[in-house]
Parts: sequence; C-alpha cells; structure tokens
Amino acid sequence: MVVVLGLDPGSRITGYGIVAETSGRLSLLEAGTIRPPAKRDMPFRLGEIYKGLSEVIARHSPQESALENVFVSKNMQSALKLGQARGAALAACTVAGLSVAEYEPTKVKKSIVGVGNAPKDQVAFMVARLLGVTNPGWAEDASDALAVAICHLNQRRMNRLAGL
Amino acid sequence: MVVVLGLDPGSRITGYGIVAETSGRLSLLEAGTIRPPAKRDMPFRLGEIYKGLSEVIARHSPQESALENVFVSKNMQSALKLGQARGAALAACTVAGLSVAEYEPTKVKKSIVGVGNAPKDQVAFMVARLLGVTNPGWAEDASDALAVAICHLNQRRMNRLAGL
Repeated sequence: MVVVLGLDPGSRITGYGIVAETSGRLSLLEAGTIRPPAKRDMPFRLGEIYKGLSEVIARHSPQESALENVFVSKNMQSALKLGQARGAALAACTVAGLSVAEYEPTKVKKSIVGVGNAPKDQVAFMVARLLGVTNPGWAEDASDALAVAICHLNQRRMNRLAGL
Repeated sequence: MVVVLGLDPGSRITGYGIVAETSGRLSLLEAGTIRPPAKRDMPFRLGEIYKGLSEVIARHSPQESALENVFVSKNMQSALKLGQARGAALAACTVAGLSVAEYEPTKVKKSIVGVGNAPKDQVAFMVARLLGVTNPGWAEDASDALAVAICHLNQRRMNRLAGL
C-alpha cells in the first residue's frame, strides 16, 4: 500500500487530501482544509499551516506528497504570499521525510478527466467518483488536493509499468 | 534580558543572527547562515531551512524574531522562491512560539547608521561595531540578519520609552 498526501497550499486556505492505493484500488483516508485564523498576522498563520499539515501527516503516515507547481501569480504581492504558504507546507512535508512531486495544473486535470482544460466542477465530480464517494462534503481546496494526489498515484503506476 | 533572532531568509542562503540585550547593552550570541545543498530539490531545501532555524532557536531560546519585509522582487519566479524560503523560516519561528516583527529595509539601515540609504558595507561595519566585534568573519547574509535584530531591539527600547 502507498499513501499519498495531496496539497493545495494557500495563505487563507490550505487544502489537503490523503489517498491510499492498494493493488490498484484507490481509497480516501481524509480530506480537509487548514484555515488559520484570519485575524492573526501572516507569520502566525504560516505556523498554523505547518502544524496543521504535520498533524495530518502524523495521523496517516503518507510516504509521498504531491502538489501543483506554480509559475505565475496575479502580481508580486500574491506571488510572495502564495510562496510563503507553499514554503510552510513543503517544509512540513520534507521535515516529516516525505518526498514531494510537483505537477502542471493541466497534467492534473488530464490525469483525472482526460483533458487538460476541463472545468473545475468536472474535475471535482471525477475526483469524488474515482474515490467512490457519492456526496462529498469537502471544500474545493480539499478536492483540488485530492486531484493532485490521484494524479501522482496515476503517474507512479505509469512509471512502474514503464519500468522507471 | 531579551534575546532576538534576526533573519534574512533566501532560497540559497538564509542568514541568522542572535543578539541579546541586557540593561541596554547588546551582545552577540551567534551569527551564521543556513545553506541547504544546492543539488537537492527546492522542497528538501525548504525543510533544511526550517530544521536549521529550529536548531538555532533551540540553542538560544530567543523570545522574539525580526526580518525585513518584502513587497517587490525581480520577477514572479523570484517572488515565489523568496516567498517559499520566508514561509519555511517564519513557520520555524512561530511554531517555536516566537513573535515576528517586520521592518522596512530603509528603517533597518536608518536604525543602524542613521540614514535609510546607507551602502551595505557601511551597515555591516556598524553592525560589527555595535556588537563590539572587531574582525567579524560572518557572511553578508548573517550581517544583514544581525542588522534587523539590532533594529528590532532599538525599536523595542523606543516603544518602552514611549510607554507603548
């Protein structure tokens, strides 16, 4: 069995999803969001992202983590903010000994629904379906995190088949 | 006595400096840099920044930390990279319970040499002088971190005098 943590870091909301694969079957272990108190300053909130993810990791002991890569942002300020959230989240992963894989957003969509430009709700629908969940109560950010976890498991399987 | 951790986070080099103030007298406890192996990927290096700073904090138990704020960067990519390094560093501070203060770069320079547009080597010279170190062997990033620690201690003293 391999357990993967999918991540969607953000300064306000960080989505996460834990997916296990056993003999080619996916199963959902946990999905949720970390929402640090908006009234606290940014450094405190970064610490909450780190601690929140560390707790999720301690609960499920994933061996690997995955997230979308980012090359652009609205502006310099949002790039710095997003970078900070990613930094806190990635530090939590690697300090806990997890590997980290990054995927293009189009690659994630393609892996889930077959096309790279699929609308968000279609991706969310397929994520729930692939995990066998009929009425998912999870937030959009949690669904996005699950999507990249599933993408990573698909990629692992393909690498294995290709003998990589 | 108050002990302050000054920080200068960067994806390649993170400078730090620990300065104590006892009855208005400054003393240097430690200054150095964290340089994660350049060959490893960015997530691993962010974990090294987090762990390195956590060790420094464990050695000296500072109560407060300080760093320069950043609003601009060369381009989006460098903003994301710098943000990530800052995120890992700030998470290490707040998870350890430290407060974090941010200062304008011009404010730091002014606090050390009296003018906000002083050249870097003049700031470095005064930092060494204020700490009573004649031949500082520390790197530029460590000196920059010490500068913001001293700036923070000056600000604290002024706030105290002003009854804030």
